[in-house]
Amino acid sequence: MQQQVSVITLGVADLARSRRFYADGFGWTPVFENPEIVFYQMNGFVLGTWLKAALQQDMRRPPSATPGAFALAHNVAARDDVQPLIDRLVRFGGRVLRVADAPPHGGFRGYVADPDDHAWEIAWNPAWPISPEGYVRFGI
Amino acid sequence: MQQQVSVITLGVADLARSRRFYADGFGWTPVFENPEIVFYQMNGFVLGTWLKAALQQDMRRPPSATPGAFALAHNVAARDDVQPLIDRLVRFGGRVLRVADAPPHGGFRGYVADPDDHAWEIAWNPAWPISPEGYVRFGI
Repeated sequence: MQQQVSVITLGVADLARSRRFYADGFGWTPVFENPEIVFYQMNGFVLGTWLKAALQQDMRRPPSATPGAFALAHNVAARDDVQPLIDRLVRFGGRVLRVADAPPHGGFRGYVADPDDHAWEIAWNPAWPISPEGYVRFGI
Repeated sequence: MQQQVSVITLGVADLARSRRFYADGFGWTPVFENPEIVFYQMNGFVLGTWLKAALQQDMRRPPSATPGAFALAHNVAARDDVQPLIDRLVRFGGRVLRVADAPPHGGFRGYVADPDDHAWEIAWNPAWPISPEGYVRFGI
């Protein structure tokens, strides 16, 4: 099987509120949007923000189902970029989960929740190269 | 800001059980593993399966926090590949959420939950091209 994820779909309660976080906060440009979903073309896959009720109906999951814990990460080029991006995301509807500090394995990171409580790690990890196209490779 | 996700980290209760689903079920090769995390190099980013307690501690999130609804998708090359992959993943610890059928927007898809209840959509979507390297592009 190709070692590939095609889409990350996040359930959201309010599309405009979510769009503000991603399009204005992160500064990402949607590739498609309609009244129930916004898609962003990412580094080798697509990020979708979809009305939560529609996503739950599509995946046949009752609203009461507790999804597993997860986090997404956005890595930045320099240590000094981490906290300012977290601060910026808070101005666009995010909520700080963890103020940036240095983890035991090196680098620097903090966590911010999007308006729908999806956790984002904002990290500087000098061991993991990022190509100009945004492709990220594991490294030690 | 680069339009980029660096890592998807899934919280898991049992690393061996999760590894069976991803390494044996999907057939993906880990790029790194230790007693608390397994990393897979994906199409332009890294997938991590990390002991849930460690992830929650890292992101300063209490175990009681309810994460938002989300789904990951793995797209396959042909309609006839969808249900067999779902069936295969069930043999490696998955649970069917939705038997594959055709959504209104075209293509064919079903949903399977991994052993930690993370939802995976297995989909055939002829409008979204996938490069030989696994890079997926939005299309209509």
